[in-house]
Amino acid sequence: MDWLKAPIQAGGEAFAEQARIRQTTLTKPPGSLGFLEDIAVRLASLQQTGQPMIESVQVTVFAADHGIAEAGVSAFPQEVTGQMVINFVNGGATANVLARHLGACFEVVDTGLRAPLDLTGLIVDRAGPGTANFAVQPAMTHAQLEVALNAGKSAVDRAVLRQVHLFIGGEMGIGNTTSASALAAAVLKLSPHDLTGAGTGLDAVGIHRKAVVISEALALHLPALHSPLDLLRCLGGFEIAALTGAYIRAAQQRMPVLVDGFISTVAALIAIEMAPECAEWFFYGHVSQELGHQRVLAFLNARPLLNLDMRLGEGSGALVAVPVLQMACKLHNEMATFEQAGISAD
Amino acid sequence: MDWLKAPIQAGGEAFAEQARIRQTTLTKPPGSLGFLEDIAVRLASLQQTGQPMIESVQVTVFAADHGIAEAGVSAFPQEVTGQMVINFVNGGATANVLARHLGACFEVVDTGLRAPLDLTGLIVDRAGPGTANFAVQPAMTHAQLEVALNAGKSAVDRAVLRQVHLFIGGEMGIGNTTSASALAAAVLKLSPHDLTGAGTGLDAVGIHRKAVVISEALALHLPALHSPLDLLRCLGGFEIAALTGAYIRAAQQRMPVLVDGFISTVAALIAIEMAPECAEWFFYGHVSQELGHQRVLAFLNARPLLNLDMRLGEGSGALVAVPVLQMACKLHNEMATFEQAGISAD
Repeated sequence: MDWLKAPIQAGGEAFAEQARIRQTTLTKPPGSLGFLEDIAVRLASLQQTGQPMIESVQVTVFAADHGIAEAGVSAFPQEVTGQMVINFVNGGATANVLARHLGACFEVVDTGLRAPLDLTGLIVDRAGPGTANFAVQPAMTHAQLEVALNAGKSAVDRAVLRQVHLFIGGEMGIGNTTSASALAAAVLKLSPHDLTGAGTGLDAVGIHRKAVVISEALALHLPALHSPLDLLRCLGGFEIAALTGAYIRAAQQRMPVLVDGFISTVAALIAIEMAPECAEWFFYGHVSQELGHQRVLAFLNARPLLNLDMRLGEGSGALVAVPVLQMACKLHNEMATFEQAGISAD
Repeated sequence: MDWLKAPIQAGGEAFAEQARIRQTTLTKPPGSLGFLEDIAVRLASLQQTGQPMIESVQVTVFAADHGIAEAGVSAFPQEVTGQMVINFVNGGATANVLARHLGACFEVVDTGLRAPLDLTGLIVDRAGPGTANFAVQPAMTHAQLEVALNAGKSAVDRAVLRQVHLFIGGEMGIGNTTSASALAAAVLKLSPHDLTGAGTGLDAVGIHRKAVVISEALALHLPALHSPLDLLRCLGGFEIAALTGAYIRAAQQRMPVLVDGFISTVAALIAIEMAPECAEWFFYGHVSQELGHQRVLAFLNARPLLNLDMRLGEGSGALVAVPVLQMACKLHNEMATFEQAGISAD
């Protein structure tokens, strides 16, 4: 896994400064485009250009099963993971509809369903038949972690070959908010009771039981965990590890990322714990209704683009936010300056 | 102005109920699309269809000058209103760039610049050479108010002829946050000091002076004002009255509206004071940084789609929010159901 340590470059500060100056010359009161101005400046810096753009997007949904689902932590049965993978391949899921609307390239990757599926169009990059139940043992082996991280790397390498401007990772896996909550509690050093949420739709009793499961698992594993990779291996999921690998690879490859919801943001958190320089490459699409998401975003000092009370995953919140990035770029590039328009700036 | 009293129909509750049921059958946890589900249900109800859509949009920017600008209430000189109208006609302003990105039909209407402009492509529907200074006299005459309201009606009638799915009104007028703040203070019965903001960029001293100007004007006029139309005539602007007329007409014509920022929302507030039934037809694109906007949205119990710290006007915040409405519709129409996808719903 030497690639995980490849260098990550910073954005181009000269391009950022040039973009900041241009923003003050555009025909609007300075600062009046708010967050859109910051986005344009950051993308100009990351893309090292005077004309930032997000015209093409790849969204890759990583799917995997979770041993922790045995503990009754989800409102949906485990077979839904595989059923939803079929739905992705057939184009019927939320992420498909949004990707079509945006003209984005859509991929779904089996990173470890319990049972393999024989489906044309499904990318198969399996780390195993679902993770082990981390309530009783580490979720994955070292070898499985490596396969899962590499599945994310491969997805980003495909995005680089396609020369897209933005990478979005999505996830599907019954039980994965439990895994993400455990990881977040471990990194943020919070009680699971302070960030465990409803997932796909648990009631208050279900949320409490889920938090107890996580607390007991942390008590079992934490004494032996000494690195972000250890945490990911013992508490994570194959799709979460794939997202972490993808995000690190994207930063290495100078590919801006739009992070989705709670699970994706936890994967980004682990990536940043492993390689803090990658944080500069991440935008955050939305804040979800899942309790832990707000906590992790605050820890990362990250401002999400949208707040629409979504809580679906699959990359959906990030996909809904793509037009905000696109319009921020177009405004930066296409608006007239005060001088061009002959307007009295002061 | 008899048309102002034409009937406004409610949405179709049967279509809303049908849409709510469909949302529960789509391949996602119930409620997990959050606000997007509410939007789809409301649009299905308003458009009386099982397949809501926002494929075509008209944005009309109403421009006018304000006598109150004499009181030194803006960070920009008054001639900027006309200069920006030229910028709109030439396609260089924020609203132009966003409208092009969305494929929206863009219009700019002179509802009362101080000096008329001879410009191909500018729609001329003038109520006068700017309003009078409402610090010393009513902003407009009864006849001028009628012309301004009619300018809004005409814009929506053009949108209806074009068969667009959504109307967005924008405004441009140096001094118009002062007018809007006065109207909001009068309707919400708040001190101008509690809702007056920076507009295009005043400092704290400037904001205080602006609030004092508004307070004195309200003391002068309020005793004689007995209706929303009175308020609009004495404190409003031609472009604000045009927006109010447009919003009422849109509701009469069953045309959904996406309201923009502070000034537009105040125009919607006046419309709702005049005809409460029109509220059902209004969506709110964003909450701006202008202090009064949050107050008026809260008074209207309105949830804005975006919060991007924008404070520009021109319809810009609403335009950035259009893709959210579009994607809400596409998800409603195109997602697979649990039954179609063969997924275990529980």
